[in-house]
Order: sequence, then structure tokens, then C-alpha cells
Amino acid sequence: MLTLRAPVPRVSPAKADAARIALDRALGTSKVLTDPLSCERYLRDESEALGEVPDVVVLAASREDIATTMRVAEEVGVPVTPRAGGSGRTGGAVPVAGGIVLATLGMNGIKEIDRDDLVAVVEPGVVLGHFHDTVAREGLFYPPDPNSAATCCLGGNVAENAGGPRAFKYGVTRDYVLGLETGFMGGSLVRSGRRTVKGVTGYDVTSLLVGSEGTLGVFTEITLRLLRHPADVVTILGLFSHVREAATAVGVMIAAGTVPRCMELLDATTLEAVRDMGVPIDRRAGAMLILEVDGEHAACEVAAERIGHACAAAAAIDVLVAQDAAQRARLWAARKQLSPAVRKLAKHKLSEDVVVPRSKLSALLDEVERISEATGVRMLSYGHAGDGNLHVNFFWNDPSEIPAVEGAIERLFRSVVAMRGTLSGEHGIGVLKAPYLGLEQSEDLIDLQTRIKAAFDPKGLLNPGKIFWPRPHRAC
Amino acid sequence: MLTLRAPVPRVSPAKADAARIALDRALGTSKVLTDPLSCERYLRDESEALGEVPDVVVLAASREDIATTMRVAEEVGVPVTPRAGGSGRTGGAVPVAGGIVLATLGMNGIKEIDRDDLVAVVEPGVVLGHFHDTVAREGLFYPPDPNSAATCCLGGNVAENAGGPRAFKYGVTRDYVLGLETGFMGGSLVRSGRRTVKGVTGYDVTSLLVGSEGTLGVFTEITLRLLRHPADVVTILGLFSHVREAATAVGVMIAAGTVPRCMELLDATTLEAVRDMGVPIDRRAGAMLILEVDGEHAACEVAAERIGHACAAAAAIDVLVAQDAAQRARLWAARKQLSPAVRKLAKHKLSEDVVVPRSKLSALLDEVERISEATGVRMLSYGHAGDGNLHVNFFWNDPSEIPAVEGAIERLFRSVVAMRGTLSGEHGIGVLKAPYLGLEQSEDLIDLQTRIKAAFDPKGLLNPGKIFWPRPHRAC
Repeated sequence: MLTLRAPVPRVSPAKADAARIALDRALGTSKVLTDPLSCERYLRDESEALGEVPDVVVLAASREDIATTMRVAEEVGVPVTPRAGGSGRTGGAVPVAGGIVLATLGMNGIKEIDRDDLVAVVEPGVVLGHFHDTVAREGLFYPPDPNSAATCCLGGNVAENAGGPRAFKYGVTRDYVLGLETGFMGGSLVRSGRRTVKGVTGYDVTSLLVGSEGTLGVFTEITLRLLRHPADVVTILGLFSHVREAATAVGVMIAAGTVPRCMELLDATTLEAVRDMGVPIDRRAGAMLILEVDGEHAACEVAAERIGHACAAAAAIDVLVAQDAAQRARLWAARKQLSPAVRKLAKHKLSEDVVVPRSKLSALLDEVERISEATGVRMLSYGHAGDGNLHVNFFWNDPSEIPAVEGAIERLFRSVVAMRGTLSGEHGIGVLKAPYLGLEQSEDLIDLQTRIKAAFDPKGLLNPGKIFWPRPHRAC
Repeated sequence: MLTLRAPVPRVSPAKADAARIALDRALGTSKVLTDPLSCERYLRDESEALGEVPDVVVLAASREDIATTMRVAEEVGVPVTPRAGGSGRTGGAVPVAGGIVLATLGMNGIKEIDRDDLVAVVEPGVVLGHFHDTVAREGLFYPPDPNSAATCCLGGNVAENAGGPRAFKYGVTRDYVLGLETGFMGGSLVRSGRRTVKGVTGYDVTSLLVGSEGTLGVFTEITLRLLRHPADVVTILGLFSHVREAATAVGVMIAAGTVPRCMELLDATTLEAVRDMGVPIDRRAGAMLILEVDGEHAACEVAAERIGHACAAAAAIDVLVAQDAAQRARLWAARKQLSPAVRKLAKHKLSEDVVVPRSKLSALLDEVERISEATGVRMLSYGHAGDGNLHVNFFWNDPSEIPAVEGAIERLFRSVVAMRGTLSGEHGIGVLKAPYLGLEQSEDLIDLQTRIKAAFDPKGLLNPGKIFWPRPHRAC
């Protein structure tokens, strides 16, 4: 059975009551939701993970509200699940034990944008897309760009170490987080990291907190590194008859030292789903690459030409180049329609964001085809080809199909680990991948992480049921 | 009194004997040094930090030797101080309590260079300069480049999160460490991280270990990310009458979006010391900038031209451009002669590698002048201007000058923290900066780090006396 529910008991009614009363007293009624209908809106994220309706939701408006909530939670012994945009893909923001949901969406201030030092200071509830637009108006650039930019928040981006298509050139969220202020269990507020680009004072607590999926602390303020906006961007679209040729083109580009900021790959099933949404795509195409280079105009021209040659060398059906915003939007149309298109394919969908060393991309695509054929599970793949990071989607309509889906997922994970890859490139482990952690990581490494967790949260009350579980699936 | 010695007791003779016997039995005499003369060679690093002659030195030849040493140390209760190249600047490799020195210099294998996936797998004793040369022969590039490349080792680079002049464009060691195998107290060997460019499975234990100064574990194998070697490099040297103008030029370049890989600044006293070594430098120059751009030839030309304009705009006395290896070597001569030149200035020297936000570089340079005048301590500055990372050197000949030096250092640190900077950009805290940690970090953050330390090393036996001390200097 596909495990969508964490093996964590619901908090007791007595403790839940105590938390409601203490939070109401400390924060006031306007920041504390307790009626079940309101609380139910904080039950899910953008995944299939299942939770328990929270007993109380705190709408934090300040760092002090976060500290107060975490002090009360520790005193009363009630679990806290932090939540920013609620757009996660593995259940990170799902309250699996009920208790308190600590919602930071209301803390959405951009406190500072420093053009000289290329630094921004933000609150956790700032929506990423709004932040992109705001820094762009200052001639600045914040590269991380998960597909959910319209709804996801910087607090969640940091908690999950979000990536996105530009990671090939620009890296992921961790590469841009200079400093944090974090609320810890018990109610302390602690600053870590720095405002400078370099710094090695003490342990890198900041990097440890980035990607810790809300299990170590709740961010109250985030200091981010910015870049100057690139002078020019060129978008190139390559169409291929099969993903194998697209993967070959990617290999040729990387071998030539070309560093596009995006190298997005869409497979045949994905293209078919997008065509069904009315996006016109050459019928002969069984794979698409969307490539983007940025920088000085002359360098973009050189890179775009090289990319064109690489596509041609890999037997591309067609290559299109865009240089203005309208043309670029047309080339990105297929990628932008992808999420709604894919959601229509079946009632249920699970997306696994596995990563393999780049040279194994073609082997991974072949393996996805084999797994789909062998298990009869409808699957498709798209993703960030330059990073070897594929989003492999599994579809089902009826509960009777679930055992086959579970078999397909486990087979994929085992293949990825055998290729020296990793279970998650950007979504995190959360609830949905927790049963599989032992496939990739040793017992010793997992034990070490649970000791680190205990150093931050000795009672295990912060975001329980995430990442670390009893592990049914182990490496053979 | 300048604190060069950590407040840690020497290990008892009985325990030292027990460690000697157990290690000799487990590893064999050829890997275990116990005579005091041999052991004394492992007493110091490249700093003024003082230690105790180790009771036993293990010359590790394999991961198993490291695991065995750490198992014995835990069983016998004897401190272990790991050591790679011994080129550290803050006492990180100095055995402050005697006990065991675990030397990894003999583990110097480059196990793998993968040109397709741009990954290298190395042992901790590989000398950085040798690694640079080896990957360059494959057309590849490993950017981190501390000035000690001829002697420092990758294990130490990772332990200290080494930087160097190319960090402005390429980042520091942490940005290149994908995965680690680490020996922990008790003798376990644990793999963390990954071989792929992306990955968010579990906590980022690897980033936490990078820069932990040998206090959490000892690396047995390191997986590094490589880049393609840049097509072209252009070096530009700018001479200015005063550091203030050089700092202005740096600001102009960064504001224009230029991203040189190096922006090295040398102040008037540094230039004078280098002139005394016979390097010919225009007498009018009171500051020098050495800049380097790399990438495609056309892009380098554009960037070099912009840099020339920025220097001119900041009233440069002269600007020289090199495009071949011989010309480049001439422009780098002053920087390369810097260490021996500076060492001649006095019997004793302390180098502090503070960092401030870039926009504060000029203010920091002014403050260094003011501190030197006010305290009468001879000081000079050079460093990585693009990162706001200055190496401020303090000189003295006689112990009677030490109180003034200590006063100058503390004043510098307080100014840096007031400018929202950090105490160390690349050297680490080690012994020498440990008394000052409380100037930058809160008690809560330091407590959290000591709890993390305890999760790895509950008995506190691994590299004691480093980073965390009773703190005489606190933030006001």
C-alpha cells in the first residue's frame, strides 16, 4: 500500500485544548483559528500526503508570534507544523499529528533590498514571484525559480531548498541564503549566518537549516544574496523525435562547456498532454528541450549558436530561437501548461523528482520506459536535464492500481540509487519519500541526523512524521 | 595578554600511554610515531597558536586507519587532533591537549576524475596545487585557490572551507563539495551528500561538516564538483595612489555588473614590503588591484575594457593588461611575493581575515589606518576586495608590544561586527579567534553549536580547544 500517512499518533484532545487556550491567551483571538472548518484549510499541501485537521492554526504576524507559538508548543507538549505557501510536493507542511499549524503567510514584508551589497532581507511569507518582480525592478536578479513561483513563499523555498530550471547555471536556494533568523522550540529567536558573501565563523548552521523541511526551526527573517540582472536572455527550443536524442544534445552541449541557465526536457507523453491543452507542437516531436542562455549579448549569441549546432548534431527535427519577451513566452508555453495538462491525465498523480549523474540521464529515461511497460503504470517524465533531475510522474485512477504504482516507484528509486543518484533533487523527503530514505542513506547517517534533530528539538515536537520514519524499504 | 594557548588541560600520562599501546597494537609500529622528537614536528601549524607535543602521531594510510584511531581514542578517552597539510592560520591542526595527532597527509590518492559528470573523488591528503594541475591536464577546473596551494591539502581545505582570490566569481570550497566519507568518534565511517549536482535528501550534513575545523569528524574521502577549464583568462593590474581610490574602482566595477574571478587589493605598506623583496612597482603607487576575468575570449575582452574604464574613473596611476602566461606571472609577482615579504617585517605576525559587506570596504580600510595610528601597532592590509575580505596583519617584535596588538585586534573585530561583517572569511576560528566568538555570535547560537558538536562527539575528544571557549570578549 502506498504510504500517504505518517506513522505518528494524533495529539491528545487534552493537550490540544491546552494549546488552544494558551495560544489564545498569548496571541489574542484574531491570530488564532480553532474552528474545524477554518483549520481544515491547513490540512493539505500540493501532494497526496494525508494529515489530521489541526487543532489550532496560528496566523503569525511577527517574529514574536512565532517565538510565542514555539514556547507554548514546548510547554504544552503539542506538535507544531510550520507552513508558508503550502505548495510543497511531499507533505512537508501537512500536520500529520494534528496539533498546531504555524502559518507564516502573513509575514510577507520585503524589509530591505541593498543594491550596493546585493542583499535582500525578507520575511518568510513573501511570495517568490512577487520577490522576483520586486528585485527585477531594481535591476537585480534572484535566480531560484521553482515552477510554483506564483504561490510558493520564500520561507518554504528555504525550508525545502527549492531549485527550479535555472539551477544548472545558478544553483539552488541554499546558494543564495546568507543568513537566517530562526525560531526554535522553546521560543528562542537565533540569528545565524551573515550579510557578507564570505564567512567561516563557527559551524554553517544556516546551511543545515536550509532544506531541513521545517523540522529544526521556523524562519522569521531571511537574508538573501542577489545578482545583477543579466544583460540579455536568449531562449532556444529544440524538438526531437525521441528523448534519447534530446539527452544526447544535452551531453554535447555540456561537453562543449556551454552553460545555459535552463535545460528543460519534456518527454513524449508530456508533450501529448500539453498538445491536448491546445498548445501547438509539431506532431513529429517525441521530446522537447527548452534552453536559455543569459549574460552579455555577444556571449549569448555565441552560446545560442553552439546550442543550435548541438541540437542539429543530435538530429533535432526543428530548432527555434526567441529573443524578445513575446517570442520567449511562446517557446515557454508548453512548459508553463505542463502542470495543468498533466493533472488532467488521471485522478491521482505522484511526482518523484529523482536526480542521477548527468551522464546517466539517457539510461534513466530508458529505465522509466521499461518500468512503465513492466508495471503497466502510466508514467511520464520532464525536468531539468542539465542537472540530471527528472520529475517522473505516476498516474492512477483507482485504489486497485496503487500496488502497481508503489512497485513502480520503488523500482525507480532502486534504479536511481544504483546509478549513484538521489531520491530528491528539490521536493524534499517529507511524508511521501520517508519510507524510502534507507534506500539511499545508511543507518549510521540517518542516526546521525536524528541526533542533530534532537539537538534542536529534544521532544520531537517540530514537524513530526517528516523525513525520518521506521524504514520499510532498505538498501539490499 | 594575547591568547595563543587554548584553556584545555593536557591529557594524563596514563591515558597517553594507553593510547600509544592500543594504537601500536591496532595499526603497527610503522604508522605510529611515539618518540617526542618525531611527535614535535606535529606541534604547530602556520599560525602563532601554541600546543602540547602530541603523545602519539598516527600516519593514516587508509580510511580504516582513521576509523581505528577514532575508535581507540573514544575507548581510551584521549583527544584526537586531525591534520592534513598543517598550513592553517588559526591553530586548527595544533594539538592543544597533547594526545593523538591523526595525520592524513599520506592519504593522497586522486581516486577518480570523471570528465562527463565533472566530478572528482580524492583522499584528504591530496595537495591542492597538485590537484589543480591534474584536473587542468584533463581540461577541467577546480576554482578554490587559497594562497597556500603548494602545501595545503584538500582535507584541510574542506575542514576550513578554504577560499582564496577566485571566490568572488566562483565561491568557496563548500560550493564544490558534493559528498564526503567521514570518520566519526567511536570509529564509524559515514557517507553523506551525493555525486549529483542537486540533492535534498535529508539534512545537509555535508555542508555542516565543511568548515567544522576538524571538530566533528575526519574526512576519509571527498567528492568534488569540477568545472570545464575557462577558454581564456585576462589579468589586469591597476595602480592607485591610495587604497581609497582602489576601493572606489572595485565599487564601480561591481555596480557595472562586471564579475572578475579575482579582485586582489594590496595596500601601501604591503607594496613597500614587496618592493623591498626586489619586485619593481611604480613608486607613486599606494595601492594595487590585481584583477582577473575568465570565460570566452570575446567576453573577456569586453570585461577587461570595462575594468580599465573603472580604474581610469577612479584615478588610476597606471593600468596594465596581460594575456599570456609570462605577462600574467609578472603581474602576479607582487601578490606571490607577499607572504615572504610580509614575514620579514617583524618577528611575530598575526593575520586576521575579516569580511565586511562590500560597500563598507573603504570604511574598513580607513578604520585599519585609524587603529594603527591610535595603537601604534604596525599593520597592513591586503585581500579579496570583491568579497569585502581583508587580511589585516599585525606585527610585533617584543612581548611588551602584545597588549597593544591585542587592543588593536579587538578594536578591529568590534568595528567589523559594527559594520555587519564577520570575524573570519576563510581562516576559521581555531584557537586564535575563539576568545572573540561572542563578539559576533549570540550565546544562543553558540549553545546550539555546542549541542550539535555533542551530537557528533559526546565526550568532546575531537579537536578540543577549537572554536568554542569560555568567552572573555562579548558584544557590548
